[in-house]
Amino acid sequence: MKKEEIQRKIIDAVKRVKAENPMAPSMTNNVTINLVANAQLAVGGSAAMTYLDDEAEALGGMSDGFYINMGTMMPVYRDTFVKAAKFLSENGKKWVLDPVGVGMGDVRMDILRRMKDYKPAIVRANASEVMALSALWGAEEEGSAATARGVDSTDTVDAAEQAAVSLARLIGGAVEVSGEVDLITDGKTVVRSYGGSKYMEMITGAGCSLGGVTAVYACVADPFTAAVTAANVYNLAGRAADGEVQGPGSFQVRFLDHLYMAGPEDVAANPFDVKEL
Amino acid sequence: MKKEEIQRKIIDAVKRVKAENPMAPSMTNNVTINLVANAQLAVGGSAAMTYLDDEAEALGGMSDGFYINMGTMMPVYRDTFVKAAKFLSENGKKWVLDPVGVGMGDVRMDILRRMKDYKPAIVRANASEVMALSALWGAEEEGSAATARGVDSTDTVDAAEQAAVSLARLIGGAVEVSGEVDLITDGKTVVRSYGGSKYMEMITGAGCSLGGVTAVYACVADPFTAAVTAANVYNLAGRAADGEVQGPGSFQVRFLDHLYMAGPEDVAANPFDVKEL
Amino acid sequence: MKKEEIQRKIIDAVKRVKAENPMAPSMTNNVTINLVANAQLAVGGSAAMTYLDDEAEALGGMSDGFYINMGTMMPVYRDTFVKAAKFLSENGKKWVLDPVGVGMGDVRMDILRRMKDYKPAIVRANASEVMALSALWGAEEEGSAATARGVDSTDTVDAAEQAAVSLARLIGGAVEVSGEVDLITDGKTVVRSYGGSKYMEMITGAGCSLGGVTAVYACVADPFTAAVTAANVYNLAGRAADGEVQGPGSFQVRFLDHLYMAGPEDVAANPFDVKEL
Repeated sequence: MKKEEIQRKIIDAVKRVKAENPMAPSMTNNVTINLVANAQLAVGGSAAMTYLDDEAEALGGMSDGFYINMGTMMPVYRDTFVKAAKFLSENGKKWVLDPVGVGMGDVRMDILRRMKDYKPAIVRANASEVMALSALWGAEEEGSAATARGVDSTDTVDAAEQAAVSLARLIGGAVEVSGEVDLITDGKTVVRSYGGSKYMEMITGAGCSLGGVTAVYACVADPFTAAVTAANVYNLAGRAADGEVQGPGSFQVRFLDHLYMAGPEDVAANPFDVKEL
Repeated sequence: MKKEEIQRKIIDAVKRVKAENPMAPSMTNNVTINLVANAQLAVGGSAAMTYLDDEAEALGGMSDGFYINMGTMMPVYRDTFVKAAKFLSENGKKWVLDPVGVGMGDVRMDILRRMKDYKPAIVRANASEVMALSALWGAEEEGSAATARGVDSTDTVDAAEQAAVSLARLIGGAVEVSGEVDLITDGKTVVRSYGGSKYMEMITGAGCSLGGVTAVYACVADPFTAAVTAANVYNLAGRAADGEVQGPGSFQVRFLDHLYMAGPEDVAANPFDVKEL
Repeated sequence: MKKEEIQRKIIDAVKRVKAENPMAPSMTNNVTINLVANAQLAVGGSAAMTYLDDEAEALGGMSDGFYINMGTMMPVYRDTFVKAAKFLSENGKKWVLDPVGVGMGDVRMDILRRMKDYKPAIVRANASEVMALSALWGAEEEGSAATARGVDSTDTVDAAEQAAVSLARLIGGAVEVSGEVDLITDGKTVVRSYGGSKYMEMITGAGCSLGGVTAVYACVADPFTAAVTAANVYNLAGRAADGEVQGPGSFQVRFLDHLYMAGPEDVAANPFDVKEL
């Protein structure tokens, strides 16, 4: 896909979200649940959070996007997460998975294994998590380098490129790897999006809320466009806020302001590279 | 009631809260739980949140106001919400109900139906929710227009006036309908309070925290005065913050500052109309 | 211990946290969970919250500090809190207990009684809570004044000094009493740390997040040093933010900024007194 075509799709996605205020419901972690909702509202979407499977179905039925984040597991999630994923998958909804903490704890691993049957349209995670999920779901070709590499917080986005491509092909959607540079792929095209701020590592929820905003764009766009649009608006707003503040408290405030102020052309013009595989 | 009399009662409520720091405990949703507590503190009250019925009784016994918000249902609430409502009702406590999502999901509807036996002193909701709860509890006279109308997010505050009046009469308390203009009624008098900001729709929890602040004023005032006072301080602080900010991140910060800075006379002087039925 | 020696240890603790970004996992309340994480990140640490006992063990095994805050009890905590405390105690981890609401409700009291067998390295609480926990765990000598005194929100830090000293000796660690002046003791030395802001009482979570930050410093320092360092950085950042703001909304934002900006020497230079027992 040409860069110009991607930019046209970004402009369309940003415009439609601002005009239609689509609701992307979430089952998400309690640490950053407020920031997820506020970021979704700031870009023009609407938010609704739930813990119960019957509500996930009710809410999921009203929307084309949905966000599941595994940050703070509670016993109730053992049932509700998988039931929600099943409903969303069987009804053709574009749901976004943030596999926080993949590799840690029995409840979490059991859920992730069972979710493989009800694949998300988009996976949003850091490099280590993408590599771990790709391995858990057996996405990678025999003998690929990434399969052998362990989960390590020092993994870089570049190191996760092959795992991301394989995972995107497995789910038939898009994978969004967050880091100093963000990498987005649908298994055919790889985008690298630039910008952001060092403060994004110093507030909790930059990644979680990016997942929620991705789900908002997924209400009006294909998975790959939704992920690139979300990464671009985050990098744009992060860089704009960075220059105005002295610390992480002010950064979060101004970051939300800039998410709100970013226009369609601004988001499309945020620096990004395109590579065809 | 004359406007001057209402204003005298508002001044008294704001003064007493600032002097006495009353605690209004809450069982409230996890998305906006932090903003509810911070708004209660900003106006001079004090906050305590719980999920357990034995704690709701312990906390409820120490306070005259209490806030129950149904935003993010969890399985434990099926028991705790109704037990708390029963205790509060039987002990003459002024509790505020925010029936978020009335009409959605079995757990929620079951709870709301059982709560009819333990009526709140104040219902705080948007127009559609007030109309739905009024219908669910059979508050309206046969053949009234509102009974036939469905729940629709485009319902206006004006469209909900009849439902609000009927519901206020049923519960023998006050109903507070939030919207561009806020409508408050005790079934005999209808107040419309003006002000606020477009940003209130772009942050999560403006409505929830208004419910929590209403419960704070209910500790020291009758339900109708508590609801009018809360609506007025929200409209005042919202308008003041609106002129100072560029986006929803800064708005929330300055809104809390202005909740704190609003004096008794300021709150009473916020524009509102009074209509006798 | 001489003041100069304490200051050298503070400088070392602040430097090591900024250099090593230690993770202090938490089981903490839902009202202030976001502020706890953001404060831990602001001083240079890293955060991870959980509700499940198997995850508390997995996370606790990766860290030397851990934070348990009893603010919003949920049924799941009856098991997970005590199991986590047992694991942490038996594995020599320095865990911080914030016994919010000690004295209220059966679930909470049952947990606190069972936790006595798995003692924390640090207790962080207000004066009334320290006195109540000291009495519950039988820390005080027969006939001491504090044993007889009831739990009262007007208890001052000075009134809790004897209870704090006894409790510190019982747990073999440190007790941190928060108030207008903060008192920290390991049972041999008593420090009083000065500064802060009136706004700390007007935001929710100043105390909770102090507990979380104490756990971060406990990853790299002994319990007494960790508690003094945390109290000092809070008093420093609170005083700095106080002069810049008009209300509690802005205060929280600037407080986080100043937590981030405080250097090792700044924290050590914050006013505090030392008394040997």
